[in-house]
Order: sequence, then structure tokens, then C-alpha cells
Amino acid sequence: MKYPNNLKLNLVQNINFANRGMNLEEDINITNQYYKNMSIAFIYKKPTPIKVVKMEYNNKRMITEAYFVEPSTTDYNGLYKGKYIDFEAKETNSLTSFPLRNIPTHQITHLKNIINNEGIGFIIVRFNFCQETYLLLVKDLLKFISDNKRASIPLEYFKTNAHLIPSNYLKRCDYLAVINTLEGIKK
Amino acid sequence: MKYPNNLKLNLVQNINFANRGMNLEEDINITNQYYKNMSIAFIYKKPTPIKVVKMEYNNKRMITEAYFVEPSTTDYNGLYKGKYIDFEAKETNSLTSFPLRNIPTHQITHLKNIINNEGIGFIIVRFNFCQETYLLLVKDLLKFISDNKRASIPLEYFKTNAHLIPSNYLKRCDYLAVINTLEGIKK
Repeated sequence: MKYPNNLKLNLVQNINFANRGMNLEEDINITNQYYKNMSIAFIYKKPTPIKVVKMEYNNKRMITEAYFVEPSTTDYNGLYKGKYIDFEAKETNSLTSFPLRNIPTHQITHLKNIINNEGIGFIIVRFNFCQETYLLLVKDLLKFISDNKRASIPLEYFKTNAHLIPSNYLKRCDYLAVINTLEGIKK
Repeated sequence: MKYPNNLKLNLVQNINFANRGMNLEEDINITNQYYKNMSIAFIYKKPTPIKVVKMEYNNKRMITEAYFVEPSTTDYNGLYKGKYIDFEAKETNSLTSFPLRNIPTHQITHLKNIINNEGIGFIIVRFNFCQETYLLLVKDLLKFISDNKRASIPLEYFKTNAHLIPSNYLKRCDYLAVINTLEGIKK
């Protein structure tokens, strides 16, 4: 049987997409959209920082040379019932642990500033192999870093010290369900 | 009298700089740095959103065509004693009023979302001619927009409904001094 080339391409793309599933960033963006639409919270993704080197000034200002720079802050922030929320989200394909090199020093400093100023700071980590997604509070992240010399956080540490994030169709990464169980947030 | 070329250039730059004074953005950045150093608050500038159109993948990922996009959020956000703070800062050379076209619709929507979620949202406006800088809360900005069909907010409205921001050597734009006088912030 012969397919037109386009159709064949589409089929392959669909299969790949199905296998891969939604990625963590898409899940979080969809969840944030739901939170916003339902007036639950207002949390959004920051622009990716870019260093502009060269520009051309014709009728529209075109950037002709620029580079992505290492982010000094996290990907997401916003507010929930007046409280400041800030987090970084990462996936890992590792079966056993989350490599700390995924969270650059700048971001750890940023997250420290968040909790020093009484904000809610955390990281979200998804283990792709089991599709489990955890919320690890900054205080528990810092505790691991100070207590251990390891370059990665074992899955076991997440199971004991982090919070499994529930997922459903509308709230694919419902991290506020976890935040609600923590002290200091008015229901 | 003859100066070496370099020195001459420096003198000219200094004179220009003195005439111009610090601009509002510099004043806010210095103040934010002070707030951060003194552990008073953690407020920072968001990266400018850039739309990347073309990239070159050689040894470093170079962006070869990109454009600045209209910001959908404000310039500054952060947290103060756990509370979410969000604002946009603008200067005007007008002697009589602040043109509303300086705050695009996207930013007004963003600021609405902030106060709907119990955050502290405002705009900071400096009238360059008199060097007066005002903090106008989002609720008073929205009140003006809904009560008036005018394309600009008169200086008189700022004098009556906004708060004059104090300035000193270390805190060149001490907007938190205003926030402290508002209800709902623990001292």
C-alpha cells in the first residue's frame, strides 16, 4: 500500500508524539492556564534571557547576533492568594537520581533569596521512566546539598522528602494541590 | 590648554551624565540592589522578551535573526515579606500629564491579574521636568481608565491619588516606603 508522502510523515510524527507524551513544560503551561482561567492563581513563564550583541536599524529593529545566556532566575513565578511562588522545572531520563547540574548555582542562589524573603520556592522534577513528578521545597533541596557531597539527588530522597504531584486531565501537573497541604497558605 | 584625547572624552561624558542625571531605571535598579543587600526585599527586572526567528548551529548556538516583542508582563517583580510585588516604571517629559499609551493593554491585563490574585501591583511614573516620582496603585490606575476617556493621566491626578516616592542617596526610588504605609503589609 502506498501513502502520499505527506500523510506518511504525519503518521510518523503522531506516533512519535504519542510515545513521548506531553512534556513537563507543556503540562505546567496547561495547568497554569487552568489556574488562571479559574482565578485560582496567576503563574507564568519568564522570557528566556538573551544577550544581544549586534542589531540592524532599518525600518524594524532586527537583532542579527545574540546568544542565550544561563538564566540567573528560575523559569516560573507568580502569585497564589497574594503569596509569591517561584520554581524551576526539570525532567530527567535517569532511573535512579536527579543530577544537580540541572540546577545552575545562579538558580540556587535565586531560590535561596525567595525563601529568605518568605516566598514559596521549590523545584519540580519529573522522572520520565516512571512518569512520577515531585515537588521538592527549596529548604529540602538546600538540606540535601548541605548534608551530602553527591552530584545527584537519589529518587529515594524524593520519595521520602518531596511531594508527589497529582495529575489529571485539566491539571496535568497540579502542584498547587501540594502547596495547599503545606502550612501558611490560607485555603 | 591641551588635554590628551581620552581625558577630553571622559570630561564630556561626565558633563553629559551630570546633566542628564540618573534615569528612573537606574534609580530603581540601585534601590533594588540595596533592598536585596539589606535583606529587605527581593525584587528584580525580568528579561526583555525576544522572538527568535533564525539560529545558526555551529559550536555556539548563535541567534542570527530575532526581534524585540511587546512585553506581555511588566518590567519588575519580586517579593517583600512573602507578598508578591509587580510594577512597571516609566518616565515622561510631559509637563502636564502621563500618556497612557506608555502602558500597553497587555500590561494592564497583567496588572489586573496581579491584584485579582491579591498581589501588590502598581506603576511608577517620573515626571522628568520636576523630578517627582509617583507610585500609582493598579486600583487607582484602573479607576482613572474606567472613569475617564482621556488618553493621558494629568499630573494633578497623581498629586491627589498617587503617592510621592521619597528618594535618598542609598534608596534613590524608595517605593517600599510607600508600600509600608498601605494596609495589609506587616511591618
